[in-house]
Amino acid sequence: MKYFCNSSVMLELAGRRCCDTADVNDNGLSYFDDYVLGATYECGSVSVDQASIVAFGKEFDPQPFHVDPVAAAAGPYGGLIASGWHTAALVMRLLVDNYLSAESSLGSAGLDEIRWPYPVRPGNTLRVRATVVESRRSLSKPDRGIIKTLVEAVNQDGRTVMRATAINFLRVRPAP
Amino acid sequence: MKYFCNSSVMLELAGRRCCDTADVNDNGLSYFDDYVLGATYECGSVSVDQASIVAFGKEFDPQPFHVDPVAAAAGPYGGLIASGWHTAALVMRLLVDNYLSAESSLGSAGLDEIRWPYPVRPGNTLRVRATVVESRRSLSKPDRGIIKTLVEAVNQDGRTVMRATAINFLRVRPAP
Repeated sequence: MKYFCNSSVMLELAGRRCCDTADVNDNGLSYFDDYVLGATYECGSVSVDQASIVAFGKEFDPQPFHVDPVAAAAGPYGGLIASGWHTAALVMRLLVDNYLSAESSLGSAGLDEIRWPYPVRPGNTLRVRATVVESRRSLSKPDRGIIKTLVEAVNQDGRTVMRATAINFLRVRPAP
Repeated sequence: MKYFCNSSVMLELAGRRCCDTADVNDNGLSYFDDYVLGATYECGSVSVDQASIVAFGKEFDPQPFHVDPVAAAAGPYGGLIASGWHTAALVMRLLVDNYLSAESSLGSAGLDEIRWPYPVRPGNTLRVRATVVESRRSLSKPDRGIIKTLVEAVNQDGRTVMRATAINFLRVRPAP
């Protein structure tokens, strides 16, 4: 099952009731209950340019291959590449806009197995998708559930540039 | 064994030869060979203010508890907290300045088990330390080694705010 945030294609709403007044993102996600185990949600795309790669690198990750085009050209990647943390932050923005719910998100415990299998270069466009791989109600806090999400970012050539499993807490839908 | 980047305390150099001309950071780390299995390296500290928390949040992680002090006060954390990605980026900066070697760092494959067990709030000061938990030469690429590092960030009250195991590639010291 696939969900799309592009409203020009069919949008399946994961059991959302028509009387809801909660904010709902383009994937129809508002509360824990809406996240369908096994479903993949398309979360949009983002392009990254050299200036933003260098700016992020200078602030947070000033290794030569993130901040210095000349040194990077002679370095291990043959050119400038984005900090993995920059890629992660760009991916997060798409998740916040299209996957996590402002209504019910209670934050994240963390992530497992973050990988950057292919470099992100200036001019790349990354598409992000999120697949619910685990979903359970909290035993200790019955107002919330825990979802694990396989997050994948793929570049314009279909290469996966980032992959991780995120752990998020979300409120369950309040009783009517 | 503990290493300190503060030059006012004794600095143990991990086998670095006196004839090296390579850049060496304050922990005495230049090549793969210098990273001592089991050693913990102190990597300095960083303070985080509300303006930078909100600025990072607005760009990359605009959830209410990262960008809106009023909404955050009524939210799950009782106040504004830093995006976990912001914390990770601040930690990375200290690792680049005090642990990873500009001379030999070849980038990272990724990280395992990133956790943010305690929130980072405006005014917090985070201290970062890095412990080498695995170290091996590459079999396929003999010019490099792989180190796994337990990275920990601790706040001014001794609470761990971030923990992760990073996987890094580093050049071995060239033959004389």
